[in-house]
Amino acid sequence: MKLKIKKDVLLESLNKVSKAISTKNLIPILSGIKFELSSNGLTLTASDNDITIQAFMPKDDNMTIEKEGSIIIQGKYILDIVRKLPDEYINIEVIDELKIIIYTDNSEFNLNGINKNEYPNITLEESKKVVSINNKVFRNIINQTSFATSSDESRPVLTGINFKIVGDVLECNATDSYRLAKKVIKLNKPVEENYNFVVPSKNLIEFNKILDDGDENLELHIFNNKILFKYNNLLFQSRLINGNYPNTDNLWPTDSILTINANLEELYNVIDRASILTSDKEKNVVTFEIAKDTLLVKSSSVEVGRVEEKMKIEKDNDEEMKISFSAKYMMEALRSFTGSTAILIFFGEIKPIIVREKDDDTLSQLVLPIRTY
Amino acid sequence: MKLKIKKDVLLESLNKVSKAISTKNLIPILSGIKFELSSNGLTLTASDNDITIQAFMPKDDNMTIEKEGSIIIQGKYILDIVRKLPDEYINIEVIDELKIIIYTDNSEFNLNGINKNEYPNITLEESKKVVSINNKVFRNIINQTSFATSSDESRPVLTGINFKIVGDVLECNATDSYRLAKKVIKLNKPVEENYNFVVPSKNLIEFNKILDDGDENLELHIFNNKILFKYNNLLFQSRLINGNYPNTDNLWPTDSILTINANLEELYNVIDRASILTSDKEKNVVTFEIAKDTLLVKSSSVEVGRVEEKMKIEKDNDEEMKISFSAKYMMEALRSFTGSTAILIFFGEIKPIIVREKDDDTLSQLVLPIRTY
Repeated sequence: MKLKIKKDVLLESLNKVSKAISTKNLIPILSGIKFELSSNGLTLTASDNDITIQAFMPKDDNMTIEKEGSIIIQGKYILDIVRKLPDEYINIEVIDELKIIIYTDNSEFNLNGINKNEYPNITLEESKKVVSINNKVFRNIINQTSFATSSDESRPVLTGINFKIVGDVLECNATDSYRLAKKVIKLNKPVEENYNFVVPSKNLIEFNKILDDGDENLELHIFNNKILFKYNNLLFQSRLINGNYPNTDNLWPTDSILTINANLEELYNVIDRASILTSDKEKNVVTFEIAKDTLLVKSSSVEVGRVEEKMKIEKDNDEEMKISFSAKYMMEALRSFTGSTAILIFFGEIKPIIVREKDDDTLSQLVLPIRTY
Repeated sequence: MKLKIKKDVLLESLNKVSKAISTKNLIPILSGIKFELSSNGLTLTASDNDITIQAFMPKDDNMTIEKEGSIIIQGKYILDIVRKLPDEYINIEVIDELKIIIYTDNSEFNLNGINKNEYPNITLEESKKVVSINNKVFRNIINQTSFATSSDESRPVLTGINFKIVGDVLECNATDSYRLAKKVIKLNKPVEENYNFVVPSKNLIEFNKILDDGDENLELHIFNNKILFKYNNLLFQSRLINGNYPNTDNLWPTDSILTINANLEELYNVIDRASILTSDKEKNVVTFEIAKDTLLVKSSSVEVGRVEEKMKIEKDNDEEMKISFSAKYMMEALRSFTGSTAILIFFGEIKPIIVREKDDDTLSQLVLPIRTY
C-alpha cells in the first residue's frame, strides 16, 4: 500500500470512523482502523462490534495511489498524527508487509501495523429494498426523540428509538415510561413492506455526530438484526434491539379539559428557575397552577425554601388547573421544539400532559404527572 | 436587611466569592455566603478555611439600601437564582430574622438563611507594610510559573510558588524537582524589610481566575502564616506554606556549550508531534539531535513505533548535541513565553537545559534531562 493524500480529506474520514473505536474494547484488534486502498480509492473501517463505521474517499485530485493494499493501523495514533501534521499532503506507505511509514517533508512516523486478515469479518451489505429519508429530517428525528429513551438496561427495548414504517408514513417513538416523544413524517415514496424495529439510542446519537448538515437523502437498509445507514460515502451499521416495543398509541389521552398557549422560551426559563431549589433525587418536581390568564409555577423543598414564578398565558376556556410533574422532563420536551409558541394540553390532574408547538404538527411530547399528596 | 441591587453587579461579585466554596467542605456553614449590608454598601464573604474571598460593592446608583443587616445564604442556590433571573434589578429582604426573600416582578424565592453569628470569625486584616505589584504583572507570574509546581503533597513546600523580595526585586520560583520556573521583576519601590514566603499554587490559580485584565496595582499584605491580596474592591486571603523553600540558585548551570535559537511555535509543534507515540507512564521522553543547522527530534516506543521530526535552527557554534528530556515539561516551559523566538541553552548531555525567549529577560525555565541508556 502506498498513497499520497490531502490531509484535510483523510482527517475528516478518520474523525468519522474513529467514533466507532471504544477505549474500553476488550478485543485489541478493534482499537485499529482498517485502511483498504484499491484503484477506486481509500476505504477506512472501524468497529466496536456494536456499531461499524466505514468512510470511502474516491480517487480524485486529492489522492495519488501508487500501490494498492490493506493494513490495520492503531486508531488513536493515526488520528493524532494526521491531526497534528501541518502539511497539506501526507504520504502513507506500507513496507515489509507490516511496517507503516507516514511521512511529509519534515516528519516521519514508523508504526507497527497489523495484518488485515486479523480484522473480524464485518459485512456491510446493502438491501435491495431501501427506505430513503432526507438527512436533515433524519437528524431532527434523533434530536427530538432520543432524550426520552431509557438508560435503564433492565428493559433493553426502551433504550432504543422505535421506527414504524407503514406505506409512506414513518412514526418514531421514544419512551422511558415517564415521558414519551413521538415524531411522524411522510416519506417521499411508500415502502413495499411495513417495518417495525428498534435502534439503540446511543448509536443513533453517535451517528448524528458524524452526519453533516447536507440536504441529501439518507438510505436505510433494514435487516432482521441490524440496520445499515448509507449517506454519500459514509456507511454506518448498528445492531437492532430484539423484543417487542410497547404499543404507545393508547398512552395518548383524549378529551382535553384545558389547552394553553405560552411563549416557549419564557415558559422554559420559568420552569428552569422554579426548579432551582429542587433536587434530582426528588425528580425536580414543580407544580403548575393555572387560573385566569396567569400560570403560577411553584416548587418547594423543606430544607432549602420555596419558589413562585408567574407568567402570562392564553387559555382556550375558563377551566382552572393544578398539576405537578418533573421539571427536567418538561424542559427536555420543550427544548425539542424549534418554534416560539408552546401548546400544553391538559386532561386532568393525574393524566399526562401533551406538549406541542404551534407551527409543528410532526412532533408530540407526553409528560406524566407526579402525585404530590 | 433589605436592598434592591442591579443583577449584573451582584452576579459579578457572587461569581468571584463563590470560588471559595468547596462542595467537599466538611463544615456546613462554609457552603454559605455571608451578606453584610451597611450604609456604605454590600460585602460578600466566602471561605473554605484555606482561602477566603471578599467582594465589596460600594453604595452607588446600582443599589438602594433600605435596611442594614447580615445573613448567611446557601452559596449554590443564591448563585443559580441570580444567574437565572432575567430582571435588571433584584430585591433581597430578610424577614423574621432568618427568612430570605429574593424577588422581582414575576419571581419570588423564599430561602432559609443562617444567622451571621454562626459564621466562623475570619479576619481579613491589612498590614501596615504593603507590597504593590501591577495586576497584569502579577497574573503573568502565576501563568508563567504555577505549572512547574509539584502536585505531590509529600513535600508541601514544592506545591507552592516561592516569593522572595529583596529591595525592589521580586523573584518567584516554582519547581517539582524535575523542572524549575524563575520569574524576576522590578517593583516600583523597594520594600522596607525582605520577604521569603510560599503561597499554595492552587490558591493562586483560583485567584487568577477572578482577577480581571485591569492595569491597577495589586497589594500584598504579608503575615507570618497568611497573605492578603487586595485588588480594587476584592480581597483574597490564602494561608502560606510552612517550611524552608530550597535554594534554587545553584541549580542553574554555567559554562554553556551550545545555544540555539528556534521559532517557538514550530519548536513546540515539532516536540508535540514527536511525543505522540510516547506515553505519560514513560514521561513522554523525546531526544534532541542537533547538528549543523538542523534539529532532529526523535522518540520511540517498542510496541508502537518511532518518530523523527526535523526543523531548521540557528546555532552559536559548531558543537553537536544529543540530549533527552520530558516532552511534556519542555512544552509547558515553551508555552509559558509569549514571544516568537525560543532560546535553548545546553550545558551537556546530563546537564539541565535553560529555556528563554529572545525578547523577555524576566523569565527563565530549566528542564532536567533524562538518561536514556
